[in-house]
Amino acid sequence: MKKDNSFTKFFAYLSSTEKKILDYIRDHEMKAFFRPEDINESILSYITRPAKRLRPSVLLMACGSLGGEERERLAVPAAVGVELFHTWTLVHDDLIDNDDLRRGQPTVHVAMSEKSKKSLGLDDDLSKEYGRDISVLTGDMQHGWCIASFVDCALGNSVDPVLILKIIKYLQSYVLGNLVYGEVLDVQYGIRNWTDIPAVEEDELVKILWLKTGVLYEFSGLAGAVIGKNTTNFEDEQVQSLKSFCSNCGIAFQLQDDILGIVGDEKQLGKPVGSDIREGKKTVIVYESLKNANETEKKEILSILGNKSATKDDIDKITSLFHKLGGIKRTDTLAKMYLEKALPYLDVIDDSKYKELLFHWADFMINREF
Amino acid sequence: MKKDNSFTKFFAYLSSTEKKILDYIRDHEMKAFFRPEDINESILSYITRPAKRLRPSVLLMACGSLGGEERERLAVPAAVGVELFHTWTLVHDDLIDNDDLRRGQPTVHVAMSEKSKKSLGLDDDLSKEYGRDISVLTGDMQHGWCIASFVDCALGNSVDPVLILKIIKYLQSYVLGNLVYGEVLDVQYGIRNWTDIPAVEEDELVKILWLKTGVLYEFSGLAGAVIGKNTTNFEDEQVQSLKSFCSNCGIAFQLQDDILGIVGDEKQLGKPVGSDIREGKKTVIVYESLKNANETEKKEILSILGNKSATKDDIDKITSLFHKLGGIKRTDTLAKMYLEKALPYLDVIDDSKYKELLFHWADFMINREF
Repeated sequence: MKKDNSFTKFFAYLSSTEKKILDYIRDHEMKAFFRPEDINESILSYITRPAKRLRPSVLLMACGSLGGEERERLAVPAAVGVELFHTWTLVHDDLIDNDDLRRGQPTVHVAMSEKSKKSLGLDDDLSKEYGRDISVLTGDMQHGWCIASFVDCALGNSVDPVLILKIIKYLQSYVLGNLVYGEVLDVQYGIRNWTDIPAVEEDELVKILWLKTGVLYEFSGLAGAVIGKNTTNFEDEQVQSLKSFCSNCGIAFQLQDDILGIVGDEKQLGKPVGSDIREGKKTVIVYESLKNANETEKKEILSILGNKSATKDDIDKITSLFHKLGGIKRTDTLAKMYLEKALPYLDVIDDSKYKELLFHWADFMINREF
Repeated sequence: MKKDNSFTKFFAYLSSTEKKILDYIRDHEMKAFFRPEDINESILSYITRPAKRLRPSVLLMACGSLGGEERERLAVPAAVGVELFHTWTLVHDDLIDNDDLRRGQPTVHVAMSEKSKKSLGLDDDLSKEYGRDISVLTGDMQHGWCIASFVDCALGNSVDPVLILKIIKYLQSYVLGNLVYGEVLDVQYGIRNWTDIPAVEEDELVKILWLKTGVLYEFSGLAGAVIGKNTTNFEDEQVQSLKSFCSNCGIAFQLQDDILGIVGDEKQLGKPVGSDIREGKKTVIVYESLKNANETEKKEILSILGNKSATKDDIDKITSLFHKLGGIKRTDTLAKMYLEKALPYLDVIDDSKYKELLFHWADFMINREF
């Protein structure tokens, strides 16, 4: 595969998705319900920041691969819906993780906490509560907007109402349930001491990756597929294949994300390299490195991991240990493994420009630099 | 109207709704998605505690009044949906208000914070964060369950799919938008000093009441009506009448709720009388009393209001001032005014046991003691 050429086409597709999303939300009727101003500002902040738009692109590619351009066009509100779903979970996740930055700018709870100091004259404690309150309500309203967008696929775009109802139920039960499960496991593991390992095993870490990321990619593939094929049969072979393809790619994506969080480029990532380390994020990289470390190395890693005031030197030191002890390598191997698992699922899909794009996406998963 | 008899019938109807809800959720398929245990426990906690079930009852009464018993039966998942909507907003609202008790037992964030001290060995700060995290995610999952329940009205109970999609969209845009708006105004007014009044006017306070409470009663009437009449025309005269009836009754309900928060019975309320005063809740009672107070009385009220450690004596003192200065009286007058406004809307509804129950509900709004 010619990397440059394939990536060019793929990036053009991502850009066209971004344009579709921004066009769709520009004068959206929902905006009348985003009140007061702090809510309006917060609801629109993440979604209008430049982003890759992978999930909605996956939905549209899966849709096009089974239904062509016409069905792909009908699926745009669903693509916006999946981006909004991702967005509201980010807003709540950022609050839960006490994260300061998202896509290179302040997170909702931080931005609103700061703003309230001036606009409402609040002290540190009260402004922190205000930021928390606005971010909870912002995510809630975006959650509503997400569902309203899926509804628009039927009421506005004449996709089968029963099909849309089935998609909404699947999203609100299976997808959301797994995501919440992953989120809580992540919080609970975050609390555990790493000297406890192997209490947390590699399988568990990959399971959390799937719950937190894979399941929404899986959904994007599934939703795109059923809209594309115009079927309410979620067990259809092609539908199930696209679902499994996206599920495995989603895991590969997140594994690669963990690598980029350590070795990536700060500007392209939108967050400081090393922030995963300072937050003490539990990844396969850390797990594998600790497993292979001697006592001195183990102590060194554990003294830096989760240390919010770790210096640039500390980050460099732990990064070379992650390389040396095989943590990066193992994660890369796993990512490639999940990708290999994913690819054969495309065999049952007819050749088309959409199928080609799905291949490019898979390729991008493990060869990307941002 | 014979009070005793009408209340007996009305209470029996509320009990039957409670039974329907508990039966519906007992072995519900959604429970498979409530993981891990802290999430499962939190999701089920409020909804299984004894409660009045007014919103789902209103939905079912409105439905029955236009469609009879058969349509009422089909609407049960929607009634559960509206109770779940109310429930998830309570979970998030309790976090935002830092409330400790709900229906006589600990709120989700407090219960989980306490539990995590033992189960995860967390200190005060981390356990508070854990409680926050679980309550955010619990509300999110209940929000999903709520939407899934509405979907079941179509997929499981053969109500028109387009009708259900329209209801879901209305709930997720107009209803949620107004509720979030009210929630934020409440937070912002909660921060303001009462010495600023009359910066906050009575109209504003009633508007917040409507946003936080009226709009969901309005929705319950509307959703019940369209399911009952089996129409996708939300502008239908009878539908609009039931909507307006419920909207006005909702405001009356909340005004009465504010009175009961001061003069009600602790056991029946499920929270300590005086908690509204200790929290400094901005109500018409306080607004009217301050408006009519002399300087000494004003100082006395402001010294007790919002004082978390106010004594029983303080509460008694401020309560008699609220009586003396006309705060209670004015709120009672307003409640009766909204009720008077509501009643004529029932003129376009044919006589039936459901219409009778709707009258009983209206009566209960301003004559209830819990």
